[in-house]
Amino acid sequence: MAKRYLTLTSLEHALSILKTSFQVPERRETIPITHAVGRLVAVPVYARYSVPEVNIAAMDGIAVRSSDTVGASEQAPLTLMQFSRVNTGNIVPDTFDAVIMIEDTWEWEDTFQIRKPAGPGQYVRPAGEDVRQNQLVLPAGHLIRPFDIGALATYGITQVEVNRVRVGIIPTGSELVPVGVRPKPGQVVESNTVMAQVLLDGMGATCTRYPIVRDEPDLISRALQVAVSENDLVLISAGSSAGTRDFTAGVISSLGDLLFHGVAIRPGKPVMLGKILGKPVLGLPGYPLAAQTILREFVVPLLETWGLAPVQRYTLRGKLTQAINSDPGFDDFVPVYAGRVGQTCWCVPHMKGSGVQMATIRANGYIHVPAPLEGCERESEVEIILTTDPNRIERTLILPGSLDPSLKDLANYVHNQGLFIQATEVGNMGALSALQKNACHAALMSLPVFSTPPDCPFLVQHLPKVGLVLIHIATIETGIASRVELDPEDLVNVRWINTRKDSAYRMLFDAMLSSRRIDPVSVNGYTHEVNGPDAVATAICNKIADAGMCNTGIAAAAALHFMPTGQQRYELAIRPEMLGDPKICSLIAAIRSQEYHRILSKYSGYDLSQTGTAHQYFKDYTIRELSKDIPFEVLSA
Amino acid sequence: MAKRYLTLTSLEHALSILKTSFQVPERRETIPITHAVGRLVAVPVYARYSVPEVNIAAMDGIAVRSSDTVGASEQAPLTLMQFSRVNTGNIVPDTFDAVIMIEDTWEWEDTFQIRKPAGPGQYVRPAGEDVRQNQLVLPAGHLIRPFDIGALATYGITQVEVNRVRVGIIPTGSELVPVGVRPKPGQVVESNTVMAQVLLDGMGATCTRYPIVRDEPDLISRALQVAVSENDLVLISAGSSAGTRDFTAGVISSLGDLLFHGVAIRPGKPVMLGKILGKPVLGLPGYPLAAQTILREFVVPLLETWGLAPVQRYTLRGKLTQAINSDPGFDDFVPVYAGRVGQTCWCVPHMKGSGVQMATIRANGYIHVPAPLEGCERESEVEIILTTDPNRIERTLILPGSLDPSLKDLANYVHNQGLFIQATEVGNMGALSALQKNACHAALMSLPVFSTPPDCPFLVQHLPKVGLVLIHIATIETGIASRVELDPEDLVNVRWINTRKDSAYRMLFDAMLSSRRIDPVSVNGYTHEVNGPDAVATAICNKIADAGMCNTGIAAAAALHFMPTGQQRYELAIRPEMLGDPKICSLIAAIRSQEYHRILSKYSGYDLSQTGTAHQYFKDYTIRELSKDIPFEVLSA
Repeated sequence: MAKRYLTLTSLEHALSILKTSFQVPERRETIPITHAVGRLVAVPVYARYSVPEVNIAAMDGIAVRSSDTVGASEQAPLTLMQFSRVNTGNIVPDTFDAVIMIEDTWEWEDTFQIRKPAGPGQYVRPAGEDVRQNQLVLPAGHLIRPFDIGALATYGITQVEVNRVRVGIIPTGSELVPVGVRPKPGQVVESNTVMAQVLLDGMGATCTRYPIVRDEPDLISRALQVAVSENDLVLISAGSSAGTRDFTAGVISSLGDLLFHGVAIRPGKPVMLGKILGKPVLGLPGYPLAAQTILREFVVPLLETWGLAPVQRYTLRGKLTQAINSDPGFDDFVPVYAGRVGQTCWCVPHMKGSGVQMATIRANGYIHVPAPLEGCERESEVEIILTTDPNRIERTLILPGSLDPSLKDLANYVHNQGLFIQATEVGNMGALSALQKNACHAALMSLPVFSTPPDCPFLVQHLPKVGLVLIHIATIETGIASRVELDPEDLVNVRWINTRKDSAYRMLFDAMLSSRRIDPVSVNGYTHEVNGPDAVATAICNKIADAGMCNTGIAAAAALHFMPTGQQRYELAIRPEMLGDPKICSLIAAIRSQEYHRILSKYSGYDLSQTGTAHQYFKDYTIRELSKDIPFEVLSA
Repeated sequence: MAKRYLTLTSLEHALSILKTSFQVPERRETIPITHAVGRLVAVPVYARYSVPEVNIAAMDGIAVRSSDTVGASEQAPLTLMQFSRVNTGNIVPDTFDAVIMIEDTWEWEDTFQIRKPAGPGQYVRPAGEDVRQNQLVLPAGHLIRPFDIGALATYGITQVEVNRVRVGIIPTGSELVPVGVRPKPGQVVESNTVMAQVLLDGMGATCTRYPIVRDEPDLISRALQVAVSENDLVLISAGSSAGTRDFTAGVISSLGDLLFHGVAIRPGKPVMLGKILGKPVLGLPGYPLAAQTILREFVVPLLETWGLAPVQRYTLRGKLTQAINSDPGFDDFVPVYAGRVGQTCWCVPHMKGSGVQMATIRANGYIHVPAPLEGCERESEVEIILTTDPNRIERTLILPGSLDPSLKDLANYVHNQGLFIQATEVGNMGALSALQKNACHAALMSLPVFSTPPDCPFLVQHLPKVGLVLIHIATIETGIASRVELDPEDLVNVRWINTRKDSAYRMLFDAMLSSRRIDPVSVNGYTHEVNGPDAVATAICNKIADAGMCNTGIAAAAALHFMPTGQQRYELAIRPEMLGDPKICSLIAAIRSQEYHRILSKYSGYDLSQTGTAHQYFKDYTIRELSKDIPFEVLSA
């Protein structure tokens, strides 16, 4: 098979081609001010009249001629014959140039006495104080905000001229079905152009989404010609199948010039740029995360230089919880989630493939690893570009460890209370390592229940010096899941799938093999490790394996056979000094709530009799039960 | 006159009453995903099906049974009889559990030879890799972003349930006219409710704006009853006249409970909160900046606790260019503009009255002076809450000094190029002081043209040690403006209005008086100082004064008589080391551009023959002309 991209253009060079090869459309539209928030002013806006238009009293009192008041004093009060009674906001009649507060006057038989002079202009809001007729209100390029609208309305401005860019978006791909249609196996919902439209509409673009075009050069060519004639910019979204993009490149070349195809960027490498009738045609990759990167790094900046509203970029410095690898020469964009533990903002990279859209949903930001770097080391400082409200970072809980399906219910429950759980599957060892480094708010551990203490040797071994507090979530029935019923006496002749060495599932599996005197080497698939019980069940359903360790709930949800073999304790592990953290207190309260108990009750095989109990583990592995009060009274190590 | 507010509630207490006195409405609406950006999820969203739904090839190659490949090696290649040719994205048939890359196979008479084994799951994107059926996609409380929409569409989700809050907004005030109607003198456009609607719509509220209600208790009462019955929250916007608010408080008391009236907050003191039929009724003050503060500090937080989308708050640390005074016990909110000079973010407070909406338009943020403080000292560090895109701060030029009307054209011209000029009238002395402290990018000076050097004694006196570079903007004809033609021989018998001591206008006026041997003490209004020539012209038009110094252009625009008396040089003053700053380079290029020359030509009395020339002034007041090249070659002091 021929290499698809002969030469990759650098990101920097590609962006410079994109920004310099096309004329700015300079198209305008006039919109009512009530629709103008978030738009950029294209034509300067001037006040239609002065505000206030005449002199206005700034106090309740009397309007006077200041020259009449000269010489007034306590010793020599003056009686004014010429005045006009005014309230705040009233017009100051033309013959007067000052206002005296009512408190500073003595009313006497329809006249007023004063005891000090008033300077010209005193307590008068002069005409034009706020704005003068024809004064510049909004310069071109001004980003319109909600409170600007009030001023515009006050100044007699009811509409503004803003830039307009028409963007045509063509989805291509024979495997695509429109949004709302249930895809058949092998089909994909055409969602990239919906995402593009929502994003670009938000900048003020006028988007047209064309119907899905099948993978046929003639059809693509015809659709492209229509879109180019009707728009200032065309995005052509490749299908995710392999051959499609080559059609697009060929079609662009046949209608105009292909300026580049393939950029040293990840995700997003297959991006291409064409020029047809002087207009840019950008070929988006089909993988969702790749399409997102190209929209964000290519399309948004282009539209910004064309005068559409900028997409806000809020950045934050953070420390990586794990290393990121990157090929030198490639600009990498990695989704991350960030949360602040004490003073440090920790940043957890999502290293999944570019087809995993859940990574974007879970992420609250991303980082850019520039082309010259080979990656970023663990605990190195990086700049995080946020994709959510910055205040949410402060309410994000980083909880690595062993993930159990019940955790999503906890996340859901506390999310509603304004706490955002970001959990990654790193196993029990990862949990202890993050606790050790103080790189998490708390961690999730799944501990096998053995009859003899210490029940968990690696917990003894890796317990931080300060010890730990464990909050019990549930005791979960564990066992063997399989597609067809297994013969309990013949566990060797099936394809097993296994979990990580440090998982409770693995420890219980090993204990079972040992008790039955089965050599792990003889177990087919013993070395085939996946992340957790969910992945075990998925692999069995997908016939990648026949059997593996799992829990009752997951096996039932996946309609698998289940043979109980033991139990595990699912625990929230916390460094004692973190127990005062308000987020941690809320989390513990949530675990102990009736509502969460009710939610967990739906899982079969979950024993909730100990849920919410708290134990402090000291470095010497002595254990003390803590009271039900939060925050706990904790003993020092 | 009775004191309007007997007791002021503290901001903290008022907010606690607001947040705890009402039930959350818990109303929902279902909206299509394409309208969901910026909304908060009210009901958790689960995947409708797994993605991918079946195992998919992650590479072009052949799908195989991994068990068939055991033992393959370079020495002992295996020929596979059972396989299926697949491309990336194709379904991996159920009977196979691995894919071998086409590059790792040798095709031979319709069969494939392999030289290494494939593990189970190799190059297979397993079903559910991205998301599994019924997996939690968005927890309740999730803030929906553009890229989430793509994932939702992919997962078969076409609509989401979000919180709904109905807000009724009643404008009251006999002096009000609706938006789009030209107000007569003494009338005001009803713009506060438009601003409120635009702001709250942006959070996802469902707003109803009711017609303007005249200042009559019965009408207000009737309008309020309707609004309370139709909404979850009612905002009643007081007219700006004095008596109105008392009607509102009385009406609220007659229909329900008045929880507070008057809060120790500035602006916004007259705010009131009532409870009618269990629902909150918030009385907004009439002054625009006061209304804004109440919307931002009361209404937005309430709607956030009710589950609407948060308004993003981006903050920045900055140094105040001038002190802010605040009464202890009052929470003050002051509009500011911020810009970065070198490493320091400088923050200029706008200290105008709460009727000056232009202050909000010009500001790019605000600061909160908490109740216990008496204010903030000059150069103290403050937290700036931004009201614009943070990147704009980096493109903001702080240019204090003597403002000339032509500056708005320069601001407009460079704004279009992405540079934002924030200019404050602080006079020539303020300009020099800011330059001295490095608290500005450059400053604007208006220097009188006298025949003998040194033409400007205070420039000599206050020149920073490093000297200055002056870029000439224009030489401007200066003289006396008046409503009626003046007798040049009798300048004493009119009411003068004067400008600040350090202004070119004042210096030229003083020089004229001196040459005519007129004692300033004999000049009526000599001590009545306003900020600049624009304010002089406004005061004369408004009959606050009869005559004052001004320039040809302003006098002509205000239709005033004009008697030329001299000239002034309008200069951009820059510290030499700032000349390398790209923003300063762009600014100088703009001043020198043909386009700006063309714009300035429309001003009568502006001599442009020297526009753009640059002179370096050394501490010893020697002067050197600089070349036309940018950046300049500058000599050290």
